[in-house]
Amino acid sequence: MNFLEHLQSIQKKQQSLLCVGLDTDPSLLPLHLGSTPQSVLQFNKEIIAATHDLVCAYKMNLAFYEALGKNGWDVLHETMAMVPSGIVTIGDGKRADIGNTSEQYARALFRDLNFGAITANPYMGADSIEPFLREEGRGVFVLALTSNPGSKDFQRLKVGSAPLYKKVVQTAKKWNTRKNIGLVVGATHPRELKEIRSMVPEMPILIPGIGKQGGDLRQSIKYGCDKEGLSALINVGRSVLYASKAEDFAAAARSEALRINNEINNYRGTI
Amino acid sequence: MNFLEHLQSIQKKQQSLLCVGLDTDPSLLPLHLGSTPQSVLQFNKEIIAATHDLVCAYKMNLAFYEALGKNGWDVLHETMAMVPSGIVTIGDGKRADIGNTSEQYARALFRDLNFGAITANPYMGADSIEPFLREEGRGVFVLALTSNPGSKDFQRLKVGSAPLYKKVVQTAKKWNTRKNIGLVVGATHPRELKEIRSMVPEMPILIPGIGKQGGDLRQSIKYGCDKEGLSALINVGRSVLYASKAEDFAAAARSEALRINNEINNYRGTI
Repeated sequence: MNFLEHLQSIQKKQQSLLCVGLDTDPSLLPLHLGSTPQSVLQFNKEIIAATHDLVCAYKMNLAFYEALGKNGWDVLHETMAMVPSGIVTIGDGKRADIGNTSEQYARALFRDLNFGAITANPYMGADSIEPFLREEGRGVFVLALTSNPGSKDFQRLKVGSAPLYKKVVQTAKKWNTRKNIGLVVGATHPRELKEIRSMVPEMPILIPGIGKQGGDLRQSIKYGCDKEGLSALINVGRSVLYASKAEDFAAAARSEALRINNEINNYRGTI
Repeated sequence: MNFLEHLQSIQKKQQSLLCVGLDTDPSLLPLHLGSTPQSVLQFNKEIIAATHDLVCAYKMNLAFYEALGKNGWDVLHETMAMVPSGIVTIGDGKRADIGNTSEQYARALFRDLNFGAITANPYMGADSIEPFLREEGRGVFVLALTSNPGSKDFQRLKVGSAPLYKKVVQTAKKWNTRKNIGLVVGATHPRELKEIRSMVPEMPILIPGIGKQGGDLRQSIKYGCDKEGLSALINVGRSVLYASKAEDFAAAARSEALRINNEINNYRGTI
C-alpha cells in the first residue's frame, strides 16, 4: 500500500483528519510531572493514551527531542513505541542534504526510529529528497508554503510569473511517482492552500498553524481536503497538549482533541 | 569576539583554511575497528588527535550521528570533547523551522552540544534563522548554492533577473548585523563562488564539494578567500578520513590533511 492509500485508510477508519503535534516542551508540563526527559516521556504516554482513537497521526518535531540532550533520542524511541499500529507517525525534522547524507537521515528516521512519514526541505533539490522516497509506504511532506512570517522571504518570491512555492508544488508533483509525497502548507495562508489543492488534487497536505499561530480551521478544511474530504492533516499542538496544566491534563487534552475533531468533521460534512 | 573575528584568528594561528568533515560512516571504517558506534568514536578520536594542528575547523554532519541510533548523540558529545579549544566546530544539520522550534534546535546545538557554528537552510526565512544568531560568537552558515546536482532545481531559478541563491546571499548579508553569518557555496560552482565573494567581501564561506564531488581546490581558494586570504573554509571529508583502511589510517589521514593544507597555502600565496 502506498502512503496516500495508507493515510486515507486510517483517516476513514478513525474518522479523523487530526494530527496531534507532540512537540513537548519540558518547561510547559503540568507541575506535578516535573520537567526532566522522563517527565516528557510520561506526558507523551498519557497524551497518546488519551487521544489515540481521535487522531490519524502524531507529529513529533525532532527539535524538541534534540533539545533534551543525550536522552532525547530514547524519549523519542519510547514515545514511538506507544503509538498504536496504523496511526501515522511523522518525524518533523525538515531535513535534506546531499544524496549520500539524506540516505543517513533516511536510515535514522525510517529504519532506526521507524517513522511512517517525515518532513523535508526542498531547497537542495531532487537528489536531497530522493533517498526518502524509496519506500512507497512511507510519506515525505515537502515544505511548500510554511505557516511562519518568514515564509514571505523566499517562498513567495516570483519565479517567472509564479511564486517559488508553486514551483516547489509543481516539482514535488513530478517527483511523486510512488504516491508517497505530500506537502506542508500553513493554515495561515488559506487562499494559497486553495490554489495548491487545485494543483494537486490527490496529494496529502499537512497543515500546521491552527491555534496559536492564527490559522483558521474552517478554511483549512474547506480548502485543504481532497474531493472525498480526505488527505488533509490538521496539525494541532499546544492547544491540545497544554489544555490543562493540572493533574487532569490528559483528560483535558482528550476533551480538546474531541472538540477539534468534531469541529473538523462538521466542516467536512458541509464542504 | 564575533564569529568572523574568531574564525580569522584561528585560521591565522593554525595557518589553515582546512575543515575536516567528520561524517563518519561505520561501514567505511578500517576493518580492525569494527563498525559499531564505539568504533566511530574511536575512529574520530584518532583522526582528531592526528589532524588537529592542521585544521581551523571540524564539521560534523549530524545525519551520520543520528544514523547510529540511540548512541549517536553520545558519540557526538564525546567527539566534541576531543576537539581542542579554539578550533571551530560546525554542527552541519541544515536545520531551520518556525521561530519557537528553531529556538529548540539552537538549544540542542549551541547549549547541549556546544557547537561553535551550525549550518542552516534559508527556505523558511528570517524568523527561522534568527534564534541561531543571538550569540555573536557562534556562527551560522546559511545554504546559498550547494554542491549537489539538485542545487539547480530551485537555487538557480531566476527571481527577477538574478537566481534565487543570490537573493539568499543578499538577504543573509542584511541579517548579518552581528558578524556571525557565513554562507555555504559548493566547490562545484567556481564561477558563482567568485560572484558571491564579490557580493560579500567579509563573510565566511564554507566550501564543501572538494574531492569525491569533483570541486576544484585551486579555484575554491582563488575565488573563495577574502582579500587577506582568509574566511574561506575548505571542507574535506572522505579523502582524509578514508585515506587508508589499514591500521595506519590516522597517519594516512594526517599525511593527506597535510598535503591538502600545503596545497591550500600554496594557492593562498599566489592569489
